[in-house]
Amino acid sequence: MTNEGGNKRRERRERRRASPLADRPFRLLRNPYPPVEVLSVEELQRIHLASLRILEEIGLEFLDGEALDVWQAAGAEVDRSTGRVRLERGLVMEAVSTAPAHFSLRARNPAHDLHIGGNYINLAPGAGCPYISDFERGRRPGTLVAFQELVRLVQQCPPLHIIGGVMVEPQDVPVPVRHLEQVYSQFTLGDKAIISPARNRETALDCIEMAAIVFGGLDETQRQPVQLGIINVNSPLRYDASMLGGLMTYARYGQPVVVTPFILAGAMSPITLAAAIAQQNAEALAGIALTQLVNPGVPVIYGGFTTNVDMQTGSPAFGSPEGALALFAGAQLARFYGLPYRGSGSLNNSKLPDAQASYETQMTLWPAVLAHANLIHHSVGWLEAGLVFSLEKFMLDLEGLLMMVRLLDGIEVNDETLALDTMAEVGPGGHHFGSAHTLARFRSEFYLPLLSDRQNYEAWREQGSLDAGQRAHRLWKELLAGYEQPYIDPAIEEGLREYVGRRKRELAG
Amino acid sequence: MTNEGGNKRRERRERRRASPLADRPFRLLRNPYPPVEVLSVEELQRIHLASLRILEEIGLEFLDGEALDVWQAAGAEVDRSTGRVRLERGLVMEAVSTAPAHFSLRARNPAHDLHIGGNYINLAPGAGCPYISDFERGRRPGTLVAFQELVRLVQQCPPLHIIGGVMVEPQDVPVPVRHLEQVYSQFTLGDKAIISPARNRETALDCIEMAAIVFGGLDETQRQPVQLGIINVNSPLRYDASMLGGLMTYARYGQPVVVTPFILAGAMSPITLAAAIAQQNAEALAGIALTQLVNPGVPVIYGGFTTNVDMQTGSPAFGSPEGALALFAGAQLARFYGLPYRGSGSLNNSKLPDAQASYETQMTLWPAVLAHANLIHHSVGWLEAGLVFSLEKFMLDLEGLLMMVRLLDGIEVNDETLALDTMAEVGPGGHHFGSAHTLARFRSEFYLPLLSDRQNYEAWREQGSLDAGQRAHRLWKELLAGYEQPYIDPAIEEGLREYVGRRKRELAG
Repeated sequence: MTNEGGNKRRERRERRRASPLADRPFRLLRNPYPPVEVLSVEELQRIHLASLRILEEIGLEFLDGEALDVWQAAGAEVDRSTGRVRLERGLVMEAVSTAPAHFSLRARNPAHDLHIGGNYINLAPGAGCPYISDFERGRRPGTLVAFQELVRLVQQCPPLHIIGGVMVEPQDVPVPVRHLEQVYSQFTLGDKAIISPARNRETALDCIEMAAIVFGGLDETQRQPVQLGIINVNSPLRYDASMLGGLMTYARYGQPVVVTPFILAGAMSPITLAAAIAQQNAEALAGIALTQLVNPGVPVIYGGFTTNVDMQTGSPAFGSPEGALALFAGAQLARFYGLPYRGSGSLNNSKLPDAQASYETQMTLWPAVLAHANLIHHSVGWLEAGLVFSLEKFMLDLEGLLMMVRLLDGIEVNDETLALDTMAEVGPGGHHFGSAHTLARFRSEFYLPLLSDRQNYEAWREQGSLDAGQRAHRLWKELLAGYEQPYIDPAIEEGLREYVGRRKRELAG
Repeated sequence: MTNEGGNKRRERRERRRASPLADRPFRLLRNPYPPVEVLSVEELQRIHLASLRILEEIGLEFLDGEALDVWQAAGAEVDRSTGRVRLERGLVMEAVSTAPAHFSLRARNPAHDLHIGGNYINLAPGAGCPYISDFERGRRPGTLVAFQELVRLVQQCPPLHIIGGVMVEPQDVPVPVRHLEQVYSQFTLGDKAIISPARNRETALDCIEMAAIVFGGLDETQRQPVQLGIINVNSPLRYDASMLGGLMTYARYGQPVVVTPFILAGAMSPITLAAAIAQQNAEALAGIALTQLVNPGVPVIYGGFTTNVDMQTGSPAFGSPEGALALFAGAQLARFYGLPYRGSGSLNNSKLPDAQASYETQMTLWPAVLAHANLIHHSVGWLEAGLVFSLEKFMLDLEGLLMMVRLLDGIEVNDETLALDTMAEVGPGGHHFGSAHTLARFRSEFYLPLLSDRQNYEAWREQGSLDAGQRAHRLWKELLAGYEQPYIDPAIEEGLREYVGRRKRELAG
């Protein structure tokens, strides 16, 4: 090893040590407090029964022949001309009952394996944004480079558990091969668990094949899940062919999907919240039952994403109190069925990473944590109702998540932390700054902000009077500058590269 | 009545109708969900026992002869040379047990009477700020005019239950007579319940006399409380003469005080959170016991304000996760003793009404609501760790409070809101915008933001690309412009004016 190599390694080590996140390790997160519930037992039961009536009396449309075959074989009442399927409650509840209450999700680096269920909380970044923005380069369409930058940043943030899905749409990559570039970037630039595309059968199959390369074959990936797919219902009460293809393919290969009805009350459901939640529940139960009919026992997550439409603008209202109530109620229903639950984090309608972006985000994050959401999707980065992934918002949301992590650690109560001797020693009117008890703990006792400013006014002005967004801007640049690609077995990287190359040629041909 | 008078009335009526808060009436607020608790029963018990040991073994200093007399008469171990008092647990717990679990607080306008205790939440604005700021006039020392502007604004915001205390310090009024101008403004410019100064015996007595003028005599005010006093403990473990004078005077005249230890862990208590909470509890219990020894059965509120010191800057850390945990724990202790609890709302360290101001505020407000704080002090307006009352932050916080109010209204579940007929009618793949069910409800079903922007990017840009703070600026100006003085009996106003005039002459002499 030459000296130059040694110097480089040292430099890299120092850069790593200097990272503002150096002392926030990756860890599994749990909420030790009982879940907050907004529905009484009677109300819960009433919504449950309403959704069973929706399934039986109204039914859903499944716009896919194979899905209709599965329902028909299971004994459902299927109208093949319209795709309308009416589902008897016993059929649905029996199928749902085979889904596990919790499961493990493997990451490329086993140190990043996850647990989904119970009171575990898993944090995933914002997804589905067509635009990306930052203070330097402005608001612009997503590109593969922008997507890869986000993969690097998520990898650089230990508190985030999951990389992706499509955090920002790489609009410069043709749709038919987009998923290949995306998953290749996720697996090679990061080593955490991933959310992978589930757009249709072919896409899903590619993602499954690529995971098989990473994890040592299809048998191995079917032993334990290695990727999460997101399935959005075409509410009201309709699953289209592409989503059904993705759902059934993932299920067949033992990979969990998040079944998420996309309901804006007043547009895709009746305007009243109880109806929106009952409809969400019917839609989710139907999709979850389908995964179990395809592959009994395959893990699946109940997804809640219901909110209201804003009646003045026609826009979806994200971070609204109605969305918060729906999030709470969805978690309660998922718990009632013994299913893991997906909530959201950084939802908001603001065009800037300002106060509105922040209080609407908190109106989503607090309910997600308190309700015991097992997966908090979109936990960082959203702006503009999800049209934009903002790098500054990413950092602001990260601070919010880290504060929440500290909150969930609770209060340590023992003789040492009660410190009655110290109190007696310092006595009334004294001060604790210099006590031995304080000196032994002052570096590590309290949450240390990432970017929040606690200086006095004069010191803050001297340093340029920056607002939180401007400090967030500095932070992501610093984190990105410190990025190093995690180790990947060259044979795996080569295998992925070959697969992507071959499939790109096939899909172009 | 001339036409001109009629026109003016009409104009005023229209202005009122146009108020952005016209459809948010004053109402008593309750949290119907069970309180969130962060301490196990064992941990709670352990902190309780530690605080009893603090009272017995370490004791507190009471720097006031009359207070020492009261303790001595009650059988406490009093060292008159140092003021140190050691309090046997039986004495304290017996005294605390006579404090009521809930009480009513009268307002000048009976329609604004309040209930404090149980799951009721009462919202009071920020207080104690030496500076005031807004985007137009900048950051400047508080004045009487600025204080009066805040009284008008609080009166203009129906969701806020309480006017004052010293929202901003009227630094242009000499300290000895400041309380007179303050309370006069509170009683004449508004008609809601008030927090009045409790700085010392003389101040407290003036406030009590002024309330007697408003409510029809001292007998009447002693029948039911008409003002709240805030008592801050000089932590660690010390009550000074002025605070004790205020506490005992209010208690003697049947007026409730909020006994609030001011603890920054690591400075005024040991650095560990368990110790800070145990010390807070000992300090609060001692003050609460003293109110009961002075006047058994007088209402009193347990105040929690503990947070940590920021170890990098030495500043108090407001809106920190440690502050949130202390807020939760304090509420649990107050509930354990059957006492109403005071938490906080808009605490933060930011210098601007930006994202940081907002997420730190939410890190205080959510715990206060979830923990069942009965009084949320500082619920609007704080910036800079309470050095500044910001008019823009006031409006941003108001939006946050209104969202919370909607959240606490919960989900209405009945046949009508479950709307299965509508769902069947619209069917799979349809849309609900035009359904009869939607049309009948779309104006009132959802929370309507005060200042949050839900437009799309293009519409938002066309309207000037304003951030939330800038929209907040417009809002307070609009509210202030629409202010009208509530009716006050001219004899009462005259009585108050005379009292203030006489006392100003006496205090100057």
